[in-house]
Amino acid sequence: MYGRGTTDAKGNLLCHLRAIAAFRDAGVDLPCSIKVVFDGEEESGSPSLPAWVRANTDLLKADAALSFDGGFGGSNRPRISFGSSGLLFVEIRARGAEQDLHSARARLVQNPAWRLIWALTQLKTPDGRIHLPGFYDAIRPVTHLEREMLEQAGWDDAAQQRDLGVTEFIDGVSGVDAHERLLFTPTCNIAGFATGWMGEGHKTVLPSRAACRLDFRLVADQDPNVLLATLRQFLDDHGCADFEMEDMGSIEASRTALDNAFADVVIDAARQVYGAQPETQPTGDASGRQGVWLGGMLGGIPAAGTGVGPPAWRGHAADEFMVLDYYRNGIRYAARIWELFGQQSLGGTS
Amino acid sequence: MYGRGTTDAKGNLLCHLRAIAAFRDAGVDLPCSIKVVFDGEEESGSPSLPAWVRANTDLLKADAALSFDGGFGGSNRPRISFGSSGLLFVEIRARGAEQDLHSARARLVQNPAWRLIWALTQLKTPDGRIHLPGFYDAIRPVTHLEREMLEQAGWDDAAQQRDLGVTEFIDGVSGVDAHERLLFTPTCNIAGFATGWMGEGHKTVLPSRAACRLDFRLVADQDPNVLLATLRQFLDDHGCADFEMEDMGSIEASRTALDNAFADVVIDAARQVYGAQPETQPTGDASGRQGVWLGGMLGGIPAAGTGVGPPAWRGHAADEFMVLDYYRNGIRYAARIWELFGQQSLGGTS
Repeated sequence: MYGRGTTDAKGNLLCHLRAIAAFRDAGVDLPCSIKVVFDGEEESGSPSLPAWVRANTDLLKADAALSFDGGFGGSNRPRISFGSSGLLFVEIRARGAEQDLHSARARLVQNPAWRLIWALTQLKTPDGRIHLPGFYDAIRPVTHLEREMLEQAGWDDAAQQRDLGVTEFIDGVSGVDAHERLLFTPTCNIAGFATGWMGEGHKTVLPSRAACRLDFRLVADQDPNVLLATLRQFLDDHGCADFEMEDMGSIEASRTALDNAFADVVIDAARQVYGAQPETQPTGDASGRQGVWLGGMLGGIPAAGTGVGPPAWRGHAADEFMVLDYYRNGIRYAARIWELFGQQSLGGTS
Repeated sequence: MYGRGTTDAKGNLLCHLRAIAAFRDAGVDLPCSIKVVFDGEEESGSPSLPAWVRANTDLLKADAALSFDGGFGGSNRPRISFGSSGLLFVEIRARGAEQDLHSARARLVQNPAWRLIWALTQLKTPDGRIHLPGFYDAIRPVTHLEREMLEQAGWDDAAQQRDLGVTEFIDGVSGVDAHERLLFTPTCNIAGFATGWMGEGHKTVLPSRAACRLDFRLVADQDPNVLLATLRQFLDDHGCADFEMEDMGSIEASRTALDNAFADVVIDAARQVYGAQPETQPTGDASGRQGVWLGGMLGGIPAAGTGVGPPAWRGHAADEFMVLDYYRNGIRYAARIWELFGQQSLGGTS
């Protein structure tokens, strides 16, 4: 079945609704109490969700949180993630003269592009270090279990580099260390920079404006709101109080403990339904307000995120697709998670 | 008379042709031998001119060089310049992965925008210093006469700042020092920088490419070709040997001596024709291969550049104009320069 959303996330969401219907049609009580939250803003960072969750914590009270989104990896095994990255995204704008000038005037008139570049270089040095005060202080250490999960993940440098179109990683990092860096370290990335004239022709202009966009991928427990204020202070402290800074959105990082029964439930359900060991990752490199994030917002209840889409399901493309067998197994996967969770709550073993 | 080129430079050029015709029509010998060079590429830096001049130095042999281009200043006095800035214009391109990536990958994949920014910061520091080896070594000192000419020019900080749309100059420089800096110091200007996504929407991308354009305004006797090679070496030496660098054009700086009889001739001719002291400047902030440049190419013969267009003649705009009185006076100006030059060559005084 082809069409945008067939997997991401209509197919995924429907698995849960069909599982609930299947229990009901069979005249069987639900194995546990289920509260369903639909969020239509996930692709734009779910900006309305935090306030809504904070306003409805009693309604949302639960023992565990789960999201279904995305799908299988290339190895044709279900993926289960126990966290996601945070994000802080800002645009910074510097101004010089009232309008662009003949570049000969650069001897007397400050170029805002130089000022912005000098500020950026103070923010992040060639060694990769990010110089926001306290930036690294709040980072939650990698646990033994998380590292162990990475070691079992079968990270392949050559395959990853081929996929990314590079021949080496920063600092020559490799193997499990590269995988750990991808999932457990924050970064400060220049997502855009524009000033002056870069089109056809030879315009030697002194630009009146320069702007850049920075995105910080964050890890637990860095607080994007604290860092936003720190960044503003950093600019002020480095002679750039006149720079405008626009908050273009942020997402909290999330990470759930691996040594809990709910993690076992989700992994066991995948094993039972698919007859294979799932791909598990202790946290994700991308950002989103999903199951594990919700678990964090609800006081750190056990949480996980997984999905049922077929391998290479072409998320967001016009020819995104769902394979019906994967959809039907997805319903079984959802139902099995709840059955196991219900047994566990009753004192059974998974 | 309105139209592109009515002043710059058709009106200016015609003054000389009409002056020659006037001598002929009056049955009078030309007061001196005149060689006329028309260059149709001035607005794009006259890229073909240097090779042609080098191939025709015998043909061009002369005692002085003069160009007519541009026109009067706001004070309604003719401007005479005894030099012009040089220029080196380059585009530098850095590459990262084969294509743009999700910005979460910035933890493992180098961002070419960061590399380019770090290189630029090493090239020019916040104190304005340009760190190309030897960059400042070849600079010809400002002479007493040149400084004196600046002191007489009536530089007005407030008027200049209003005109440029700024409230202060770099380093708080002011007065004649500001004027000297504008005319006698080189700079390195970011004329453009582009990477990633700066359009509508929130794309947190790890760019695969970043590019910038730098223009260096040069002063006598900095050699743009030497600096081009030095810049390439600088990039190589700072870990950027993989950066592409494109030479987008260069122009040699020029400056002629002020203590020579030809300078007196041009100034006296202006005084006599316009009944006013001309605006003289020892060199110009803009770049071009014009009269003084040609004088330098011909072994450093005395040279000058001036023009006859009316104040605010709107150069290059669709409504550029020439006022007929200015055109007619321009013919007299051209003729008077040659008469005075002829007298001088015959041992007369100006």
